[in-house]
Parts: sequence; C-alpha cells; structure tokens
Amino acid sequence: MADHAANKVYADYPPALTSEQEDYLAQTVKNWTVEHALLVRPSTAIVPEEANPKNVLATNAPVTLFPSPFPKACFEQAKTIQPVYNELYASIASDEQWLEDIMRELIEVDDFLANLWKIHIAVKEEGYVQDLSLGMFRSDYMVHTAEQAPPSLKQVEFNTISSSFGGLACRVADMHTHLATFPSPKHSVAYPTHPLFANAAGDSSIHTIGHPPHNEAVATLTAGLAAAHVAYGPSRSEPRLPTCVIFLVQDNERNVFDQLALSSHLYKHHHIPSFRLPTSKILAYTSIPSKDSNPYRPLIYTPPSSPSTQFEVTVVYFRALYAPTEYNTPTSWAARHHLERSAAIKCPTILLHLSGSKKVQQVLTARPPDTDHLKAFLPTHPESVLDNLRSTFAPQYSLSASAPEASGEPEGIRLALSAETAANHVLKPQREGGGNNIYRTNIPPFLNSIPKSQWKQYILMELIRPPTAAKNTVLRSDGQVVSGNVISELGIFGACLWRNTPGDTKPEILHNTEGGYLLRTKGKDSDEGGVAAGFSSLDSLILYEEY
Amino acid sequence: MADHAANKVYADYPPALTSEQEDYLAQTVKNWTVEHALLVRPSTAIVPEEANPKNVLATNAPVTLFPSPFPKACFEQAKTIQPVYNELYASIASDEQWLEDIMRELIEVDDFLANLWKIHIAVKEEGYVQDLSLGMFRSDYMVHTAEQAPPSLKQVEFNTISSSFGGLACRVADMHTHLATFPSPKHSVAYPTHPLFANAAGDSSIHTIGHPPHNEAVATLTAGLAAAHVAYGPSRSEPRLPTCVIFLVQDNERNVFDQLALSSHLYKHHHIPSFRLPTSKILAYTSIPSKDSNPYRPLIYTPPSSPSTQFEVTVVYFRALYAPTEYNTPTSWAARHHLERSAAIKCPTILLHLSGSKKVQQVLTARPPDTDHLKAFLPTHPESVLDNLRSTFAPQYSLSASAPEASGEPEGIRLALSAETAANHVLKPQREGGGNNIYRTNIPPFLNSIPKSQWKQYILMELIRPPTAAKNTVLRSDGQVVSGNVISELGIFGACLWRNTPGDTKPEILHNTEGGYLLRTKGKDSDEGGVAAGFSSLDSLILYEEY
Repeated sequence: MADHAANKVYADYPPALTSEQEDYLAQTVKNWTVEHALLVRPSTAIVPEEANPKNVLATNAPVTLFPSPFPKACFEQAKTIQPVYNELYASIASDEQWLEDIMRELIEVDDFLANLWKIHIAVKEEGYVQDLSLGMFRSDYMVHTAEQAPPSLKQVEFNTISSSFGGLACRVADMHTHLATFPSPKHSVAYPTHPLFANAAGDSSIHTIGHPPHNEAVATLTAGLAAAHVAYGPSRSEPRLPTCVIFLVQDNERNVFDQLALSSHLYKHHHIPSFRLPTSKILAYTSIPSKDSNPYRPLIYTPPSSPSTQFEVTVVYFRALYAPTEYNTPTSWAARHHLERSAAIKCPTILLHLSGSKKVQQVLTARPPDTDHLKAFLPTHPESVLDNLRSTFAPQYSLSASAPEASGEPEGIRLALSAETAANHVLKPQREGGGNNIYRTNIPPFLNSIPKSQWKQYILMELIRPPTAAKNTVLRSDGQVVSGNVISELGIFGACLWRNTPGDTKPEILHNTEGGYLLRTKGKDSDEGGVAAGFSSLDSLILYEEY
Repeated sequence: MADHAANKVYADYPPALTSEQEDYLAQTVKNWTVEHALLVRPSTAIVPEEANPKNVLATNAPVTLFPSPFPKACFEQAKTIQPVYNELYASIASDEQWLEDIMRELIEVDDFLANLWKIHIAVKEEGYVQDLSLGMFRSDYMVHTAEQAPPSLKQVEFNTISSSFGGLACRVADMHTHLATFPSPKHSVAYPTHPLFANAAGDSSIHTIGHPPHNEAVATLTAGLAAAHVAYGPSRSEPRLPTCVIFLVQDNERNVFDQLALSSHLYKHHHIPSFRLPTSKILAYTSIPSKDSNPYRPLIYTPPSSPSTQFEVTVVYFRALYAPTEYNTPTSWAARHHLERSAAIKCPTILLHLSGSKKVQQVLTARPPDTDHLKAFLPTHPESVLDNLRSTFAPQYSLSASAPEASGEPEGIRLALSAETAANHVLKPQREGGGNNIYRTNIPPFLNSIPKSQWKQYILMELIRPPTAAKNTVLRSDGQVVSGNVISELGIFGACLWRNTPGDTKPEILHNTEGGYLLRTKGKDSDEGGVAAGFSSLDSLILYEEY
C-alpha cells in the first residue's frame, strides 16, 4: 500500500502513553463521561440482569481517548453538500411513482418493505391529512484513499429514519476538546505533546486548530423538530389541547441519553414539551378521534401518569420501528399504520423511510447509470453542485437480472461471482438495520448458497479504502482500554421540513439546515458497525490540512 | 403528640401515587439523574466488585421523589444567620488560646485530635507562611416542633471541613422543580395535584411557590474557592509557575460527581484549573522546595500524566482527611503536616478543622453557659443578631467532671444516667465523622459499660423533635422505591475567607457569603445519617407559610 497523504498524518498518532498517562487519561474520561452524560445503559453482557434488576446503572458510551485526524477538505465538502442531499431525499420521498417503480421488484420478496408500502397505500386511499414531512438525516461517509491522489469522501449510506448519536457526538467533541485544552491549549495535561495538538511546536507541513470543531448536532436536530412543531399550527381538537412532540422509542432502549439530549434541548431552548413513547404503548397511550367527531385526525397523547391532561401530538420523531425485528408483536403494524394516518407530522413518513433504503442509494449511484436521477430530482441546481454530490458516490451494482445492461449477465452479478473482483466489494442486504453484510471473497460462495431468486435482495458495493495507518485507543463500556488500527465513519446531520401539494412531485422546502457531525471508529478487524452493539466507538475529529 | 402546625402540612403529603404514576415518576427520575449527573459510584453492596472491575458504572444518588415541605420562616432564618455563623467560626479558628483551653482535656484522650494539634504546634514553631484561611461551611439544622408553638430551627452541627453535597443538592432542587413544572406548572404530569404544587387550586391556608427555591450552593462554594485563589496572589516560585487549586479526595471516593460539579464550575466560570489529588498521592505528587531554595514554601503539584508541567497550588480544598479512619497509612500524618506547612491556603487549616469539633459546639451552646462566648467572638454584632443565633442552639451538656456546675454531679451526667431524662437525649462522640451515636434509653447502660474516664469523650444533646407526620418516597441507589415516615436535616452553605495577623485574635474578613442548601431525608427508623452510606437521601424543599 502506498504511503499516501492520509496515512502520513497517522505515522505517530495518537502519541504513545506512559502507564501514568494512560491511567490519568482513562480516569479523566471515566469521570467526564458520567459528569456529562456521555453514557449508555449497560448491556447484559457488561452487567448481568440480576446485578441490575431495576435498570438504574449507567456506563460510559464506548469512546476513543483521542479525536481522529480527518482531512479538512473532506469534512467541508460533506457539510457543503448536506443541504443538497437533504433536498434530494425530500424530492425522492415526494415522488411516489418513482419510488414505486424502483421498489416494485423488492416489495415482491421483502415482507418488511411490502408491509410499509401497504400502509402507505391504505392511508393514501383514506386520504393523508398532513402534507408536511420532517427529515432528520445523517449522511455517512468514509475517507477513501488511493495512490497518488488526495483523500476523497465516499458515501456509505444516507439515513432517513432514527439517525442517532447526535446527542452523544456533541459530548464526545466537547470531551476531546477539554482533554486537548485543559488547563490551557499550550499545556494540556491529558494529551502528550503532538503536532496535531496546540501543546507542541507545530509541524509546519500540517495545520490544525488543535482540537475538534464545535459540534452543532443537537442544535440542528432540535431546530428541525421545533420548525415542524411550529409549522403544525394550532391544535385541531375541540376544545384545543396543549401540544407536544413524541419521541417514539424502543422498549428496552440503551441509548437513552443520546435521545434525552435532544428532548431536553427542545424543552429548554424551544420551550416545546416532549414525551417518550415506547413502541409497545403506541396504541395504549395515543388515540385518533373517529371521523365523525373530528375529521382532522389529531393524534392525542394521554400521559399514563396524568390521564386527565391530554396533549395533541405535532411531531412523531421515530427513534424506533426502523428495523424489521421491531415489528414483532401482533399490533406492531397496526401501530405504525395508526401513526401514519394521523395528523401528526411524521419524522419520517413511510415514503421517506423507504427513500432511505439501500435500493434507492443503489439506483442513484448505479454503474452504469440508467438515467440522470440527480438532475431530475434537483433541476434547479447547477451541474457543479451535482458533480460535487456525485463525487461522493461509491459504485453500486444491482444483482437483479432486470438491470439495464444491454445483454448478457448484469455487471453486478459478474463482479460478485468472480473471487478476484469480489475481493474489492461488499454485498449488502437492501433492508435497513445493518448486519449480515458479506465481505470480499465470502461473496461468491454466499451467493451460490442461496436461491438465485433472492439475489435481488442484495446490492454489491465497491469497498471504500480508508487510511490503513489510522490508529486510536478506545475506552470500552466495560472500562477496558484497547488500542489498535481503526476505521472511521463520518456522519453529517441535516434537518429538512417540506410540504407536498397533491399532484406535484416537487416538495416545497420550508426548512433545510446542516449542522453537527458524528465520527464512529471501529477496530479494523471488525467489518460491522453499531456503537450501541459495543463494536464501534464514538469519536470526534481533528481537522488537518497538509501543505 | 399534638397536631401542631408543622404536622398539618404533611397530613396528605406527598400525594398518593397510582402504580402508573409511580412507574412514570421513578422512570423519569432514573433517567433525569443520569442525564444530569445526580449520580454516585455504586457501593459494592449494590454492584459486586467482580461485576464492575474497572469502576465505570454509576447509579443515581438516593433521592426523594418529592421535595419535602419546610417552614419558610425557618429556612430564611437559617440563611440570615449563616454569615454570622461564618464569622463566628472564623473568629474561633483565629483564637488559638481559646481553642487550646477547651480542647486540652480532650486531646489527652483522643489521639486524632492530639495528632492534629501536634501538627499545628510544629508548624507554628517553624512559622506559618500563609496568613489566609478559607472556610467552606455547612450549618446543619432540624426543624423542632413543640406543642402550641410554631416550628423552630435547631442546629445539629456546624461543618468546617469537607462540607459535601453542594453539587448534588443543586441538581436535586433542579430535578424536583422539573418534576413539579413539566410541561407547565399548572399541568405537571409527574406529580398528582396537591395544594403544595401549582397544579391544584391553592388551599388558602397554605402559601407556596409550588417548587423548590433555586439552589446556589455550587456558585457560592466555587466563588469562595475563587476568592481564595485570587487572594493567594502570584506564584512564589522562581520562575513563576502556573497556579491551580487542589481537590484533596479519598482514594475510593464514591461521591465523585458532587465534587466535579464544583471543579467544573470553577474552571468554566472562574477559569481556574483544579486537579484531584487522592490522599495516598499527596507526598508523591506535591512537593515544597527546601528553605534554602525558596523560603516561601510554595506547594508544587506535578501532574503524573505530564511531569514537565508543574503548578503552584493556591488552595487545598479538603474533601478528605476529616475522619480518624482516613489516617491509616504510615505517611498519613506526614502528608497532613506537609500540606499545613505549605504556602497553599488550606480549606481548612488545622485550627479551623478543630473549630468544627463537637466540643466547640458544646461549649458555645452549653447549659448553663460558663461565659458569653458569642459576645466575645462577635463583639460588633447587636444582641438581637446574637439572640437569633442562640435561638438555634439545642441544649448540649459536657460529661466532663470539670464542667462548670457549682457543686455535685454535673448536670450532663445526671441527665444521661437517668433513664427518664436520657429518653430525651442523644449521646455523641466528640470526634468528627459521624457514627456511634447512642440514643435515648440506651445511654445509661452504654455509659455504665465503659470506664468513667472515657465519658468526657462524649457530649449529651437534647433531642430535636422533628415533625412526626413527615413522609416521603425515596428512589434508592439500587432502584428500589420505598415510602415512609422521614426526618429531614437542612444544611446551609457558606464560604468565608479571612486573614490573621500575628498577635491579633480577630480575623480580617475578606469574603463572607451564604448561599445554597442541602436537605437530607432519612427513614424515621434510622437514627444515623450519611447519604453516601445509603441510609439517607438527597432531598430539596418546598417552602410553605401558613395563615
């Protein structure tokens, strides 16, 4: 592997720690995380249920002890294109026909997507009573390195539902900033001297500010919720009810404090109350008046602790019901249908949820392209802006036999079945929720082990090559400190509110912002993500420019 | 027991909870405490060491689910007299001869007090190099109820060292305020309607604001530290060193987040860095230059993680070394001596530490009084102010045979040995650190079981009669919710900085403030305190006036 630029910065990063330094740093982080709620509820792998029967314990989220170096130009590109990505996905979710066309084949084989689609159709037939949609997005990238070229940004996925970790990511950035600047930037006691920090005479070939950029994720995301809440307007109930936002959460959520960061900020800074609603309680605690008593279908929330005080729900913010495994009770689908047909603004609607499926990303980024979808969805943007977006696409291939190749075996199938070309790819299920990715030379035997009719449930993606020299040290949730080679994934948060007019496939954008970031870093031997699962760690970034 | 005023307010308080209400309230508190670091490290009784080998877990501090009603007049009296109490103890600590006279007899029998005194004498002979002293005080009271009389305030003790829980107490007040006012004071969903809250039509005979008063403890205490830091002046080292405050802490401290609330506020709002120094590391991480190289004896702190960056310590804030059990290594006393002879401002000095001993309180409040100590220590205050202070004294009696009674058995011994009068008293060891109080009719047999020569190590105090009807509900650190009759103790925080001039027993007061409170509430069956020990809970108060 060539010694390209993005690896050079890692040559002696993070700086080596003496045992006293590691003890001090780990102890400081253990205390800082608790003091600032950079915490999760521990998994039963860390604390057995019998030792925590009332679920009161908390432990640090897995975090890196150092911020990871990240090319400044890539970070700025990701921020610049986020509002365009927001608009792109608002446009996709507004074009039901386009979505139906590309999902049709998948819906035949995927019960989850089929059930979502059925709900949309049923509500469409009854008639939607809410023309506003809210997207709280996170676009995920990796830095791609190639010989003789500067590092570039490649999109991993675009999340349209339950984009998490904005709350905790802000705290990691604050923590790394504290560590790098306490008691003063020139004399930080937690970090050994290093050219990437302000505590060393600078290496003239690398420029940094010595600590992570401020992370605006909480402010950005709550401003999105607040914009939707305000746009909802007055209560549609008779007499009018006080209004609230609902955070729809999993019953056994461990990532509680990430979510509370948003709800607390929403209340403190926007004076908007919100309630946490576990998915198992949707039908118990919320109701929609009958058509005769109120045709506007307001969603009424009745707090279990105070049934005489009802609220009308302006926004349902989904931090749950994104994965097939969550629809595991007889009423799960009825509950989703119930929310979809209500007047509450959904974040997301079912169409927006479907827009985030990997199939959509694959169509947008398909090699070779069938149509210029970007130009169609974003007709008002200059070609240079679209090119900036396109530069973040990693090639993706359909495994469907109906792929648009002129003749013979589709290119995706050809690349997947050859061990030589498969070695450069990852096979991903089209479903949401992660897991079960098949990597490199495991792809051909895997495909040969399943019926050919199921191949179209997968897409093939060219592997991104992150810097091979990247290293960091992690404090796991069980308190172990581990070091090694790592891979990082950058997420950029965005919020977008739009209105759909019947018959018009173009959304009217009312609010479109970018702000805040997530860096997730995992050990290089692991090919799967998911911080809450304990495999990857929350990180922040130290931007650098090389001269 | 008569139905006096302070009991009436408890007649139906706290309001009864349905199981849904209790679930919602407990779950809300479990999450709120983690989000706002109202936390402790769990004891091994809650989480066995093998389940938490790296000490990363945290759990809620034991907290009441409701604030406790408290008579407004008593609270305001406690606040009004705090600056006078601050000055009183500054004056006591400044009068070495007076202290020696009253401690002499105790020092003969108490190794702990004797060792403290020896250090003071040794440093005095070498010559003190710091004439400033800082007191971070907490005066503790109970409400005393008597038939046909309004509730009154009686002092339990005055803490001159390691006055804790200011940090967590602020958070409890914030939490109870949140519970009482979310989403609005008129429609709180966590608390059932009750006349003490704003969510009910007010009972015209009781006036409250519906939530706890704002708690200024953190601001008050850190302003005290900041005043001392600034008064220390520039570094006495050659060349000058950056300066810092030291938080002296126990090696296995569980109440970490209470302390971090102060150090973080000190850094954020006063820009003063501080470091946590475990007592076992005093001699390893701090040093005093030899007399020849620097006669001013600056205390130099060398961070273990960054030995090339030394700091000069302006203030040593003791959150440790207050109890005899902490001096359990061969170098414990040497370490205390080392700090006392340094130029750092001690919070507290040994004289101030000794001023907080129960013996001093007993002499000040002695029945009958031997001398008007208050007038002597506070000559500039009008008699009405001193009377206000005196009204908070609960009668205390020496068990020393040299007590100033004219003839016969000293009154304290007579009251203690009779089962009938003992039933109204508590026998307390004069040492700091709590524990081993002997109550009521256990007193005579206890005294008869120990040599008479040890009696003078105890003082006899008339029991305060708190409202018998007081009830509350507690979330323990293990997540259990328990309800019952309770007793509450109010602490008022104060900070005082003064200068002593050789030969003058009157301190020059430079900073004297009052602010913030602690309410600790324990089950009525327990006669011992100490939140960190799991027996009592952190509480806040809801002030009421009756018409």
